[in-house]
Amino acid sequence: MNNFILKNENAIYYECGYSCDNVIYLNLGKESFFITDARYTIEAQDHVKNAKVIESSNLIEAAQKVIKKSKVKKIIFDGNDFSYDSFTKLTEKLKAKFVNEPSFSQKKRMIKSDDEITILHKAAKLGRQGFKEFAKYVRKNGFEATEKFLFFKATEKMSQVGKLGLSFEPIVAINANAAKPHALPTGKKLHKDDLLLMDAGVKYKRYCSDRTCVSHVDFEHFNFKREQTFKKKKHQKIYDIVLKAQLNAIDNARVGMKASEIDNLTRSIIEEAGFGKEFVHSTGHGVGLDIHEYPFINSKSDVIIEDNMVFTIEPGIYLPNEFGVRIEDTVAMINGKAVIL
Amino acid sequence: MNNFILKNENAIYYECGYSCDNVIYLNLGKESFFITDARYTIEAQDHVKNAKVIESSNLIEAAQKVIKKSKVKKIIFDGNDFSYDSFTKLTEKLKAKFVNEPSFSQKKRMIKSDDEITILHKAAKLGRQGFKEFAKYVRKNGFEATEKFLFFKATEKMSQVGKLGLSFEPIVAINANAAKPHALPTGKKLHKDDLLLMDAGVKYKRYCSDRTCVSHVDFEHFNFKREQTFKKKKHQKIYDIVLKAQLNAIDNARVGMKASEIDNLTRSIIEEAGFGKEFVHSTGHGVGLDIHEYPFINSKSDVIIEDNMVFTIEPGIYLPNEFGVRIEDTVAMINGKAVIL
Repeated sequence: MNNFILKNENAIYYECGYSCDNVIYLNLGKESFFITDARYTIEAQDHVKNAKVIESSNLIEAAQKVIKKSKVKKIIFDGNDFSYDSFTKLTEKLKAKFVNEPSFSQKKRMIKSDDEITILHKAAKLGRQGFKEFAKYVRKNGFEATEKFLFFKATEKMSQVGKLGLSFEPIVAINANAAKPHALPTGKKLHKDDLLLMDAGVKYKRYCSDRTCVSHVDFEHFNFKREQTFKKKKHQKIYDIVLKAQLNAIDNARVGMKASEIDNLTRSIIEEAGFGKEFVHSTGHGVGLDIHEYPFINSKSDVIIEDNMVFTIEPGIYLPNEFGVRIEDTVAMINGKAVIL
Repeated sequence: MNNFILKNENAIYYECGYSCDNVIYLNLGKESFFITDARYTIEAQDHVKNAKVIESSNLIEAAQKVIKKSKVKKIIFDGNDFSYDSFTKLTEKLKAKFVNEPSFSQKKRMIKSDDEITILHKAAKLGRQGFKEFAKYVRKNGFEATEKFLFFKATEKMSQVGKLGLSFEPIVAINANAAKPHALPTGKKLHKDDLLLMDAGVKYKRYCSDRTCVSHVDFEHFNFKREQTFKKKKHQKIYDIVLKAQLNAIDNARVGMKASEIDNLTRSIIEEAGFGKEFVHSTGHGVGLDIHEYPFINSKSDVIIEDNMVFTIEPGIYLPNEFGVRIEDTVAMINGKAVIL
């Protein structure tokens, strides 16, 4: 196997089953090393598989020592994984040649094992439970709740009151705020016939779920089902276009297509409807240990889609100062087709 | 003023009053530029002060264009602020010379303005309120609550149910888990006469608070006051040593000292008591927009302490598999002395 060096937490977890926020991982020939500081040594020794745990208050120096001793000649690294300074310090005075292979770890992880798909499936299921619990809360207590409060409640419900980690901070956005793809919660209050967007996910065994729903607000029937009846015609019109685009991609995505073809399955529908310019991002991204990973589903990607790839399909239309709609599911490619996790 | 380039979110907020997680900020002579993508343009245009907002889907290319056009010859950057790849891409084909000044932005921010101290004071006050609310919860409902649940409740109480952001994920650790300076919450349940450590902080106007308390558990009187009476003699002994060390530093820190002298004010007490090896980290760190910033209070730092510096004093003793005690306050240097915020 190739020699390589890693700093990224998830990349390292993938290699040895444990990780923390201050570690350098080295794979040098047949030996692997997990270099961390005193705060993490106890847990590392308990959980790291197939690598020697080294404790050091200076990870770069410790890595240099291990590399020198090993006498390896070539080490692969990811130029996005190291800061300019860390990389410069690490490589000075070392004879080994460092070869930059951007995202080499993420590319390794692009096709999931069946076990990983099982975990991702469970993550998605737990995520859906969180959406359900949050919907129940909105029905009961959502009237005039602020976005900030709803954001907190979304965090509580998604995490099952702290039992699960989250893939990212939930987005809970009402009307015009939903027109910002990365809205921060405000003091804006929820009312009947509003449009509510929620984008959220949980982590299960470190693997992420990711889902976005847009719903009509009504304190009797509020839910995150796909079928939504909006009071405002324009809400309904835009929602229906985005839903059609999303279903077109889910139904017609096939193994063997380029990622760009899948992007086109959503984009073409939205463009035909006249909202191409309002679909300001790509169709999706891979999901795994990272919330954003390979394959990226955009108009430029030539990546060939294969079985056991897992990614989101999330077209959107954003009308500034009015509202936005994005509908997102995470799918796995199974037996040639996309299956919603 | 010098020409410089920034990517760090807080550093950029300090310059122009707004920031987001995908931005390059350039200060070139008399002009400044805030380069971000379409997700953030609306908010950037509303909030960025004294800089031109540029929207681009490729920040590096947009920055290159601006730099070329400006014809500046020298640009300061922080080698920790850019990944190896971003820096390499940014600088290729550019004639300007890039000068690496590590932490130049953090160093600018080391001495706070009076306005910043007022904000940090308010952040600390809000943080203390969160600790109080959490203590109330523990008295009422803490019996047999798990660390994971207490972690969630700490998040809820500190954030005032989502109204405030947090400086970092709270640490809530019982007994042996408190012996790990960076403990993750477990299924362990809280009982009478346990020792509970809580390390938490909030953000107010983007500025952080930071505080750690260790308390005797008792569901009638549980509180985070400095005076704690433990049932177990060893808890009391270690607590009293750490408290003595902390108070020694707070009482005797003076403007004009080196940071290493302040470190020694805590360390000498703990070493005299025979626990020098169990004090596994430095005495403190600056607090501001970043939760960890200049000045760092450790045994090697020659930084001279000045009025309006803000930093933590947080000695600790960690007895693996038994328990740990860390007592932390954030202080500001005012009129030559340390004042707890």
